[in-house]
Amino acid sequence: MSESLPRPHRSTAQPSFDWELRVYWEDTDAGGVVFYANDLRFLERARTEWLRALGFSQQTLHTDAGVMFVVADLHLQYLASARLDDVLRVTVAVQERSAAALRIHQTVYRGTTVLCSAEVRVACVKAADMRPTRIPGAIVQALNTLP
Amino acid sequence: MSESLPRPHRSTAQPSFDWELRVYWEDTDAGGVVFYANDLRFLERARTEWLRALGFSQQTLHTDAGVMFVVADLHLQYLASARLDDVLRVTVAVQERSAAALRIHQTVYRGTTVLCSAEVRVACVKAADMRPTRIPGAIVQALNTLP
Amino acid sequence: MSESLPRPHRSTAQPSFDWELRVYWEDTDAGGVVFYANDLRFLERARTEWLRALGFSQQTLHTDAGVMFVVADLHLQYLASARLDDVLRVTVAVQERSAAALRIHQTVYRGTTVLCSAEVRVACVKAADMRPTRIPGAIVQALNTLP
Amino acid sequence: MSESLPRPHRSTAQPSFDWELRVYWEDTDAGGVVFYANDLRFLERARTEWLRALGFSQQTLHTDAGVMFVVADLHLQYLASARLDDVLRVTVAVQERSAAALRIHQTVYRGTTVLCSAEVRVACVKAADMRPTRIPGAIVQALNTLP
Repeated sequence: MSESLPRPHRSTAQPSFDWELRVYWEDTDAGGVVFYANDLRFLERARTEWLRALGFSQQTLHTDAGVMFVVADLHLQYLASARLDDVLRVTVAVQERSAAALRIHQTVYRGTTVLCSAEVRVACVKAADMRPTRIPGAIVQALNTLP
Repeated sequence: MSESLPRPHRSTAQPSFDWELRVYWEDTDAGGVVFYANDLRFLERARTEWLRALGFSQQTLHTDAGVMFVVADLHLQYLASARLDDVLRVTVAVQERSAAALRIHQTVYRGTTVLCSAEVRVACVKAADMRPTRIPGAIVQALNTLP
Repeated sequence: MSESLPRPHRSTAQPSFDWELRVYWEDTDAGGVVFYANDLRFLERARTEWLRALGFSQQTLHTDAGVMFVVADLHLQYLASARLDDVLRVTVAVQERSAAALRIHQTVYRGTTVLCSAEVRVACVKAADMRPTRIPGAIVQALNTLP
Repeated sequence: MSESLPRPHRSTAQPSFDWELRVYWEDTDAGGVVFYANDLRFLERARTEWLRALGFSQQTLHTDAGVMFVVADLHLQYLASARLDDVLRVTVAVQERSAAALRIHQTVYRGTTVLCSAEVRVACVKAADMRPTRIPGAIVQALNTLP
């Protein structure tokens, strides 16, 4: 039915960043599983922690560099459901870079089971007017040092 | 960068269902705009109200028919940002049907501006074990009567 | 201001503002009922709509008057649970006013059943530094015209 | 049980459980600070982790013992605001116990600054009908071994 969408998302050889988190009541819904919008919260946490691991905080980018990363395009495949108390692992791997955007592949795992696979295009924008702008040089430099 | 994804999503001739909602503090983030995961809450509300307009409630489907609709695949394009107090209009239009799933096109508008465009594949599953199952006949019949 | 908090919360003779809303999947948790934090989202929506009914929007207060209302103190009693698809009615009634704060009584009803009863102290603060400031004169005037 | 609520909330000599968490975009609102309902998510995470530290998971309580803990009464004081990227510490300390409920004191700290102080009455209920029931013996026993 979705034959025109790439499926499954290719995983790449690039080493990825991992972030662990726990599923709490707040994340679940009356179906007994994680509400589908909450996977996006998990993906965002992992991207924020990946950026922090590179040496950058969202708050500092906002106040010092006057830029923010915003999601411009998102493709998610929900393959299995997370439940209360599950420990999940969320990966972050840059697939492609341009001057003002990153295409990132993210996977949500419970153990070795893939629960959710995502392609996220993140654009760098000026905080003042939300217009696209170049990714700050320091971040580009940090990305270049990734193996 | 995402050249392999259909862009922009095709709108179809099929008449669509509309649902209006207001942006509250709860929906926004420190960037001053709606947090990207919250668009998925808006999309879900519109799908639920569309189903209700067809004569079906999620609760009744769950308890009586023992089925739930779950999102299996989602492709979102974020084109502009919603802000506090905005009134948004969310559309629902079925693009394609199979025995156990629907492909739905949804758009979030502020006035005539498209803020977000989404392709959502919704699968019908048994509430007991989350396995795919046929869409209940009464819903199929209701969908068939759509112009 | 909080030392005189009535308990259990008294309802008063003052006419109250009503706001209706629907419970969606996003509001529920794996216990099958509305997650306890989400009642605070419902309470906030009703306060925002009450303020709008008086002629003021949160966005305009923020950008034009440079003030925000923030919750300083909150007492909730959870008496019964809301479920998926429920229609709830949330009331807003000012109990007490000072120069820079309001004490508001709010109730969440399903039909005539009280689900949640809340006393909320809302303080007016400058958006720039979050310090307490006087409630804008236009709002005070609007509050004075309430029966 | 609530008539004796200390106000302002006393801290007690009882050793308390600590849980650390990070503030993400999802937690903030357009005012630039953590949305007031999200403190309740933080409080809940800390209670869940405290229970886990005692040897009990919410999921297991639900499926094995057929009970859930639900919040019956909540009093929060918001004293200062948390911001994006803040690391917060949330405490849990039982103040009072009855056969079917706990009164818990919780504080949200950023460093040594108190951001939020809460009194939470948590009731044990049967998952099947949400009616009050005795706290399982194993949990009572675990609580008794706390210093």
